[in-house]
Amino acid sequence: MSIEIPNSSFPRVVIVGGGFGGIQLAKSLRDKEVQVLMLDKHNYHTFQPLLYQVATGGLEPDSIAFPLRKIFKHQKNIFFRVANVESVNTTAQKLVTNIGDIDYDYLVIATGSTTNFFGNDMIENHSMPMKSIPEALNLRSLILQSFEEALLKDSINEQEALMNFVIVGGGPTGVETAGALAELKMHVLPNDYPDLDLRRMQINIVESSDRVLNSMSVQASEMSDKFLKEMGVMIRTNDAVVSYDGRNAVLRSGKVLETTNLIWTAGVKASTFPGLEKAEFVRGGRIKVDEYNKVTGYENIYAIGDVAAMITEQYPNGHPGVAQVALQQAKNLSKNIINLINNRKLTPFKYFDMGSMATVGRNKAVVDLPFIRFQGFFAWFVWMFLHLLFLVGFRNKMVVLINWIWNYFSYDRGTRLIIRPYRKNKQIMQDEQDLIIDARH
Amino acid sequence: MSIEIPNSSFPRVVIVGGGFGGIQLAKSLRDKEVQVLMLDKHNYHTFQPLLYQVATGGLEPDSIAFPLRKIFKHQKNIFFRVANVESVNTTAQKLVTNIGDIDYDYLVIATGSTTNFFGNDMIENHSMPMKSIPEALNLRSLILQSFEEALLKDSINEQEALMNFVIVGGGPTGVETAGALAELKMHVLPNDYPDLDLRRMQINIVESSDRVLNSMSVQASEMSDKFLKEMGVMIRTNDAVVSYDGRNAVLRSGKVLETTNLIWTAGVKASTFPGLEKAEFVRGGRIKVDEYNKVTGYENIYAIGDVAAMITEQYPNGHPGVAQVALQQAKNLSKNIINLINNRKLTPFKYFDMGSMATVGRNKAVVDLPFIRFQGFFAWFVWMFLHLLFLVGFRNKMVVLINWIWNYFSYDRGTRLIIRPYRKNKQIMQDEQDLIIDARH
Repeated sequence: MSIEIPNSSFPRVVIVGGGFGGIQLAKSLRDKEVQVLMLDKHNYHTFQPLLYQVATGGLEPDSIAFPLRKIFKHQKNIFFRVANVESVNTTAQKLVTNIGDIDYDYLVIATGSTTNFFGNDMIENHSMPMKSIPEALNLRSLILQSFEEALLKDSINEQEALMNFVIVGGGPTGVETAGALAELKMHVLPNDYPDLDLRRMQINIVESSDRVLNSMSVQASEMSDKFLKEMGVMIRTNDAVVSYDGRNAVLRSGKVLETTNLIWTAGVKASTFPGLEKAEFVRGGRIKVDEYNKVTGYENIYAIGDVAAMITEQYPNGHPGVAQVALQQAKNLSKNIINLINNRKLTPFKYFDMGSMATVGRNKAVVDLPFIRFQGFFAWFVWMFLHLLFLVGFRNKMVVLINWIWNYFSYDRGTRLIIRPYRKNKQIMQDEQDLIIDARH
Repeated sequence: MSIEIPNSSFPRVVIVGGGFGGIQLAKSLRDKEVQVLMLDKHNYHTFQPLLYQVATGGLEPDSIAFPLRKIFKHQKNIFFRVANVESVNTTAQKLVTNIGDIDYDYLVIATGSTTNFFGNDMIENHSMPMKSIPEALNLRSLILQSFEEALLKDSINEQEALMNFVIVGGGPTGVETAGALAELKMHVLPNDYPDLDLRRMQINIVESSDRVLNSMSVQASEMSDKFLKEMGVMIRTNDAVVSYDGRNAVLRSGKVLETTNLIWTAGVKASTFPGLEKAEFVRGGRIKVDEYNKVTGYENIYAIGDVAAMITEQYPNGHPGVAQVALQQAKNLSKNIINLINNRKLTPFKYFDMGSMATVGRNKAVVDLPFIRFQGFFAWFVWMFLHLLFLVGFRNKMVVLINWIWNYFSYDRGTRLIIRPYRKNKQIMQDEQDLIIDARH
């Protein structure tokens, strides 16, 4: 197999990864004197902040995904290929991929992050991560299957294990998932399962620090804690899940939670590939970069977004793994690549923290902006508005808006469908590209 | 495992299958003096007429599926369980299922139909059926993967095989799929794949009779034939695919079509389960029923919709396998079940043929109504209106409408996503319940 991209007299910038950073960089390089080749293992961009709504039946997966080719249509200097990068040969300036070798003049690594199980295979085998659309769909299937199964159990103990949801990690994903499950418990499941006593459904958050949303202000933590408790979520701070066999989640405190549903949002690690011999890696496997996002030891390799760690006084562990960092780094890097080509002075990256936010439930969100913090209905409205704004694609924005309006007024979740059943005990542990899906019957 | 449904002094009607017929029957029995238990292997109803739009990236799968539990909420006499019926014991009046045995007083079989490969395993192993949502999603993935793969091929021959689509069967599904592929070819793929010469993409329909849409009027056939040809679809009537190895489709005429994409819409067979010893089965495995939809040889077993064949003078092979038959039979049967319980006279079923229709592309459809036939823009409008009308669920109607408006004005298909890659050569041939889906990475 060979990969045919037209030869160009312009230098070739290869971007690995079609997340927020990769897309922004490619867009910023449109019509510039470079040839851009983007590689991603999927043919679509995933809007990760809304994955939890796919998992809890509030949105269709297609609404938060966007075909990467569509972003680049009518852009003559941008090419796209679905490819898995296997390694990089920095001497030959080549990427080794499943579709062949690819030469680069500039390489930008924008591969983001993946779930970190911190080496605990047992937890990895039995728990549900939520960093991709297939993972979110698996979780959706599992949640619904648990209730269908609970219906068939005589033992209250068995039923309770099936209706117990343990979310490990009290960051935005954990909090938002807990809130969405609490809304299912309040408004949707009692109608769907009149034969089950939904009061026995439990939602637990296990958070290792002393507060949920610990990357946000104390005020935001306190309010989200209050919101969650009002909605019936049990919060276990200063604790962690140390083992899980698919049934018993053992906590650091010694407590054992019986659950068939362990949702793991407790950490991420950088998605990288071999070959960066001279690079330095910091906590979570992030690639150390300088203030121009240049990878240590190389002149023409850059990393942006979650995969990169730019150590500064203000951010001794690198910037937070949020979309804004990736977007701003991409914009900065696009200018610097052009500067570099034209032997102009480079501009160091400076992060403008636009704040952060999380939603807990209807009319309930917390927002930290640089100069103001607020919570409740208006925060929830701002959260929705900004998520619609950043969601890629007009069709997606429309469909998500319709769904949100519908969900709000009907107290319903329209897409609680088990499209592909999830079988926990028969997992094939291999990379996603090898998935085998055939659904004849 | 046991299945617990409250005891009831009313007779229990067990409905197997949540298609058009099953849902209508359950709805018509609401608040009647019966206990209704519906079983389906999925937790959702599939609106089959729009599966082809899911396969061709025009709609999200969730928009044409509807949670079965939601249909029955607030209906105290209706229960639902996700279950696979393995067999029936008519002596003991029990269904044997994967979730336990289920007693019935009245059994209604509304299991519909599945793809018929007429015993040709080779074709079954290599071709794409399209009767369920996972199958439509697999086809969507295959279509898009074929273009991604074509990009990587040096050989024109290889590229052409990847861009050749052979649809076996010129019924409504075949015609609508061919039309949708032709629109992708005209409006979407040239933007997505500027590096490919899309003129080399071929769309073939192979139809064994002498005309496409042969269940409709000659006028409808002729117009759809004309529409399809205008859109570049090649129609091969009086021919059939006799073998296919994943690459070469050998036709009855001797012609060989090189294609990696064979879409099989050439026939259906009834979905039944063992145990109906006294029943008679006719062509396509359909269960013979009398004019009250009662299965031959039994007093309390009924079959409606695609799975049933009511032989009449006008319909010597049973009624056509369309939604209207299932819906009307369900309404009739619901009244007769109540009549039966109250020892009243039964009403024989009489089919009111409301006509049929198919859409070929934008502004292009054919409609046969009882007293009028028309084609073109107005037909297309009527087609859309009626499909929205019959689509289950208000949220679904809204989202589909938004998508159709979007698709119409943008000439785009928003959901061309390979969410779960399809691997042809690694199919696990097992029933859908055993699917293994894990998408960690």
